Amino acid sequence: MPVLVMKFGGTSVANLDRIKRAAKRVGVEVAKGYDVIVIVSAMSGKTNELVGWVQEISPFYDAREYDAVVSSGENVTAGLMALTLQEMDIPARSWQGWQVPLITTSAHSAARIEDIPADNINAKFAEGMKVAVVAGFQGISPEGRITTLGRGGSDTTAVAFAAAFNAERCDIYTDVDGVYTTDPRVSPKARKLDKIAFEEMLELASLGAKVLQTRSVELAMRYNVKLRVLSSFEEPTDTAGTLVCDEELIMESKAVSGIAFSRDEAKMTLVTIEDRPGIAAAIFGPLADAGVNVDMIVQNVSETNYQGHAGGVTDMTFSCPVDQMKRAEKALNDAREAGLIKFDRLEADTDVAKVSVVGIGMRSHAGVAARMFKTLSDEGINIKVIATSEIKISVLIDRKYMELAVQALHDAFELEKSA
Amino acid sequence: MPVLVMKFGGTSVANLDRIKRAAKRVGVEVAKGYDVIVIVSAMSGKTNELVGWVQEISPFYDAREYDAVVSSGENVTAGLMALTLQEMDIPARSWQGWQVPLITTSAHSAARIEDIPADNINAKFAEGMKVAVVAGFQGISPEGRITTLGRGGSDTTAVAFAAAFNAERCDIYTDVDGVYTTDPRVSPKARKLDKIAFEEMLELASLGAKVLQTRSVELAMRYNVKLRVLSSFEEPTDTAGTLVCDEELIMESKAVSGIAFSRDEAKMTLVTIEDRPGIAAAIFGPLADAGVNVDMIVQNVSETNYQGHAGGVTDMTFSCPVDQMKRAEKALNDAREAGLIKFDRLEADTDVAKVSVVGIGMRSHAGVAARMFKTLSDEGINIKVIATSEIKISVLIDRKYMELAVQALHDAFELEKSA
Repeated sequence: MPVLVMKFGGTSVANLDRIKRAAKRVGVEVAKGYDVIVIVSAMSGKTNELVGWVQEISPFYDAREYDAVVSSGENVTAGLMALTLQEMDIPARSWQGWQVPLITTSAHSAARIEDIPADNINAKFAEGMKVAVVAGFQGISPEGRITTLGRGGSDTTAVAFAAAFNAERCDIYTDVDGVYTTDPRVSPKARKLDKIAFEEMLELASLGAKVLQTRSVELAMRYNVKLRVLSSFEEPTDTAGTLVCDEELIMESKAVSGIAFSRDEAKMTLVTIEDRPGIAAAIFGPLADAGVNVDMIVQNVSETNYQGHAGGVTDMTFSCPVDQMKRAEKALNDAREAGLIKFDRLEADTDVAKVSVVGIGMRSHAGVAARMFKTLSDEGINIKVIATSEIKISVLIDRKYMELAVQALHDAFELEKSA
Repeated sequence: MPVLVMKFGGTSVANLDRIKRAAKRVGVEVAKGYDVIVIVSAMSGKTNELVGWVQEISPFYDAREYDAVVSSGENVTAGLMALTLQEMDIPARSWQGWQVPLITTSAHSAARIEDIPADNINAKFAEGMKVAVVAGFQGISPEGRITTLGRGGSDTTAVAFAAAFNAERCDIYTDVDGVYTTDPRVSPKARKLDKIAFEEMLELASLGAKVLQTRSVELAMRYNVKLRVLSSFEEPTDTAGTLVCDEELIMESKAVSGIAFSRDEAKMTLVTIEDRPGIAAAIFGPLADAGVNVDMIVQNVSETNYQGHAGGVTDMTFSCPVDQMKRAEKALNDAREAGLIKFDRLEADTDVAKVSVVGIGMRSHAGVAARMFKTLSDEGINIKVIATSEIKISVLIDRKYMELAVQALHDAFELEKSA
C-alpha cells in the first residue's frame, strides 16, 4: 500500500470536535487506499502552558526534565486521535516517540532525529492496521530519556516519517491555507503562493514566518519529500494550499517572493572588547556551548588605544532569540569571570525586530538591496544591523516600525500581484 | 542510605506552589539522611479531564489508548517536581513508568505490578542523586504499551516501591489528615483514628472510603510496609496522620471502627433466568471477561414453572461500579445473543448507595448486624441487598438515604468516642 503522512497542528486538534474533523479527513485518505501515518501536535495552548510552568520554576531549567514535561501534550492527542479513528471503525493505534522508537541525539529541547526504524509500524500495517498515530515533537535519546525537537518539531517528525516510509506525500494541516507573501495580519495585501521553492521556504521559516519548522523543510529538501501546507478548516481540493517543492518547478521569476519578520529578537552588544585574532571564537564559543542561536553578527570598526586599552578595541553586536537572552548573558559573564574574554559592559536591546525580503529570483535580479534600503529610508526607518545571503536580505530595526516596514516593502516589490 | 518513599496525591501537587511545598517536605527528609523516592499523582482535576475526553469519544474505548492518554498527567507532575527539587539544589530526576521500568500485566486500566527492578534508580542514588521522582499510576506491559493501575493507582505504586527498595516507611501525603471513622463531610462527628489495622483499612478502601487504593493496602500488608497517611497541608509531627499497621498493634477493641459508603454503585437485576446448576458461572463469567467488578450478589428464591418456563426460574441481582454498567449490559446482552444465557429483561438501578460497618472487633462482638439493621429500620430505610464478611456488613439502600444511614450508624456504634 502507498503510504501518506498527514500532520495536524495544535489548532487542528484543539478539541474533540476538531480531532473528529481531522479524523474524517484521515478516513478519506484511508478510503483511497493509503496506509496513513498521522502526526499530531498537542492541543493548542497545552504546550505553552507546560513551558510556562517549567520557566516559572526556573529560568535555567534542566532540559531533560523540560522535555519530559512538555512532550506530554502530544501523547494525549495521539491517544484521542486513535480512539476517534477506532470509533469510525478504522483500525488505528497510537505510538509515543519512545515506542516507535524515534531515536534522536541527546541535545535536549533541540534534538535531531537519528533514526526511525519502520519495522514496528510496518508490521502493524501488514496485520491490517490502517492508521498509525504518532505523537509529534518527541523522541528518545541513546540514554533512554525523552527528547523534544524544538518548537514546531512536529513538522520535522512528519517529514522524517515521510522519508523513512517513502511516503507519496506529506500533508501539513494547519490553521492557514498556505504560505503567503507575508503575514496577512500585518499586510492585508498578502497573497497566497501556489508553490514555493524549498530554499525560499527555508528562509521564510527560519526568519519567523512560522508556517513550517525550518528543519522540516531542510529534511524535505534533502530527501525530496513532497510537502503540502493546507488548512484543516477548508474543504481540500487538488490545488489547495501551497506546494513546497524544488525550484525547477517554479515558473514565477520575481526578484522577491515574500517578506518575513520576527518580533522575538534581542540585540546584544559587547562594549569595548579587545580587537585581536580569535576574539570572535572566544565570544561565540561559549554562546554556542550554552545553546544560544546567534543570528546576525556585526563588528564595529576598530579604534586603537581607545580609553587606555593597550591593544585595539572594538564593539561586537549580535542578535539572538529573546528567550535565549538570559542564557547568553550568563554565558558571557561566566566567560568574563573565567578570564576568557574582556568587555566593559553588555548592552541588551529587546525593542528590535527583524524584517527580511526573500526570493530565489534575487540571484538574477540586481538592485534588490538598494530598493529595500531606499524603501525603509523613505519611511524614516533606521537600520541597526544588516545581514545578507544569496536569496535574502535581513535588517534589524526598531520594533515599533516593523508593521510599517513590512507593508512598505510588500508594496515596493509588488507582491500583491502574481508573477 | 535508608530509603523513604513519599507519595503526593493530586491536591498536594495541584499547582506550582503546592509542588514547592511538597518539595520542601521532601527536602526535610533528605536533610535527615534519606534517599527519597517520591511518587506523584497528576495535578488534581487533570486525570478527570482526560478520562472525560476518552469517554466522550467512545463509551467502549480501547483501554490501551485510554492508558496512553490518562497516564500523561503524572508525567507532567514528575518533571515539575524534579525541576523544583533541582532549583532547591537537591539532586533529583524524574522517571516515567516505562523508564524504571515498572513492569505490569497487560490488563490495561487495571494492570497489576509484576516487577520493579531497583538497579536503575539505585545506580543514580550511588552517583549522588538524592531524590528519584516517579510518575505514579503507570507502568509498561510485556508488549511495550503503557498501562495504568486503576484510579488511585499511585498509592499502589508508592507501596510497591517501598517494598522493592525495602524502604523504612511509606508516607502517603493527601488532602486529609488521616483515616476517619467516616467521611467528616457526611458526619460531623467523624473522628480521626491514630491507628487502623490493614484488614480494616482494606475494607474501608474497597468500600469507597477512598483514602487509599485497596491494592496499596493489600500490598503493604503482604510486604509489611509501614504505611502512614497524613495531610500535606499541616506541619507534620511524629503522631501526625494515621498509621496503617498490623492488628496486633491496635489496642482499641470496639466492635466497629468505621462506617464506609459508596455512591458509585449500580444495582442490576436479570429478571427470569433459569434456575439450574452452572447458571451463576454462565452469568458472571462473561462479566469477569468484560472487566466488570461485580461486588454484591443476591439470587432470589426459585419459582418452579413460573410463566411457562420449563425448569425453575429465578432472578439474579448484583452490584457493580456505575461506570462499568454499560460494559456489564453489553457483556450480558452479547452472552444472551450467543445463546449462553436466557433472561427476560435486564433492570438497572443507579439510584442506590452502599453503606458498610467495618471493624476487626466484630469477630469477638456479637449482635453488630442486628444493631445495624435495627438502626436503619428505625430511620425507615429499606435494605435492598445485604452482604457480609468476617469484619464488615454492607447494605445497598436508596441513595437519598445514604447520609442519614451513615450518621445514624455512626451514632449507634458510638464512633465519636475513642475506645
